[in-house]
Amino acid sequence: VANEGTKEALLDAGARLIAAQGYHSTGIQQVLETTGVPKGSFYHYFASKDDFGLQVIDRHAREYDRLLERHLGDRTRSPLQRLSAFLGEARQKFEGCGCREGCLIGNLGQELADQNELFRVRIEEVLSTWLEQYAACFREAQEAGELRRDLDPRELAEFTVSGMEGALLRAKITKSSKPLRTFEKILLGEVLKP
Amino acid sequence: VANEGTKEALLDAGARLIAAQGYHSTGIQQVLETTGVPKGSFYHYFASKDDFGLQVIDRHAREYDRLLERHLGDRTRSPLQRLSAFLGEARQKFEGCGCREGCLIGNLGQELADQNELFRVRIEEVLSTWLEQYAACFREAQEAGELRRDLDPRELAEFTVSGMEGALLRAKITKSSKPLRTFEKILLGEVLKP
Repeated sequence: VANEGTKEALLDAGARLIAAQGYHSTGIQQVLETTGVPKGSFYHYFASKDDFGLQVIDRHAREYDRLLERHLGDRTRSPLQRLSAFLGEARQKFEGCGCREGCLIGNLGQELADQNELFRVRIEEVLSTWLEQYAACFREAQEAGELRRDLDPRELAEFTVSGMEGALLRAKITKSSKPLRTFEKILLGEVLKP
Repeated sequence: VANEGTKEALLDAGARLIAAQGYHSTGIQQVLETTGVPKGSFYHYFASKDDFGLQVIDRHAREYDRLLERHLGDRTRSPLQRLSAFLGEARQKFEGCGCREGCLIGNLGQELADQNELFRVRIEEVLSTWLEQYAACFREAQEAGELRRDLDPRELAEFTVSGMEGALLRAKITKSSKPLRTFEKILLGEVLKP
């Protein structure tokens, strides 16, 4: 249990440092100093900085998947109400962090997609998992009569993931959640219609 | 003239290096080696690395403004046809670069918005200039009867800039222009309608 605690503490510190300053600027030494974990322990859990970075991605992806599933799997609401609730919670989380950081996966994609093929592929897989969850929600919305059946759920999911990433980026740049609100308003009000 | 050439060569190399590897990872030394310009000359034109970075942003913004204006000011086409032509050319440019890099301004916003207030403000100003150009295009489209008048041109412009930035990010991650095509298809086909 203590060991799992140490590993979790390292991944947690890594996620926070990488979100705040990027992957290249985050050194293992800084992660060790933040957590008070000795270097030997780090290499007990992680083969290299890249191994550590990939595990930070996996852990963040699992957390985000759970949040997405908790909302999109909520049968007490209609499919598009679930999506709206999810977007609202994601926005509130961003506001709660002082409109900083944005999406860890998007940030790492921006920083590393041209430079590290291993990271690029992993990040593409993570985004593709989210995309599938949105697509499934849109198919349900079509079955429920909430969404036009002539639109392709997968293309809508792509459009949603892109729009969300771009709105988060603009929100981070403008230090305001308004870009997220505008994205939600037009996506839900103009694109996703019966 | 020779002096302006040197300054342009430095800014050009800076833009390429920053687009490829980010701002933090780009050292002045590397810019000097790439261009063969001596260090003293660099400091003749630029007070510091940040001054250099800000001028790289300004130069890129001017270039992009010209491209945007060339398309959105083309009176031989309807307002939304102009937008479509612009998005198509931006996509072809991205494809021509091997689906790398994406948007220099978006990349720098991602990397620096939480870390450097001077850069954040400048990047916000640049995005806001683009946003105004899109908003003007949407107002013209409304006057021409191409676009519903009950939609707010400024909100549509925000939605467009966000969507474009996010689609470019996903295109860079997936090494494909498909996210850009999907964005264009849904924006032009489903959001921007009479």
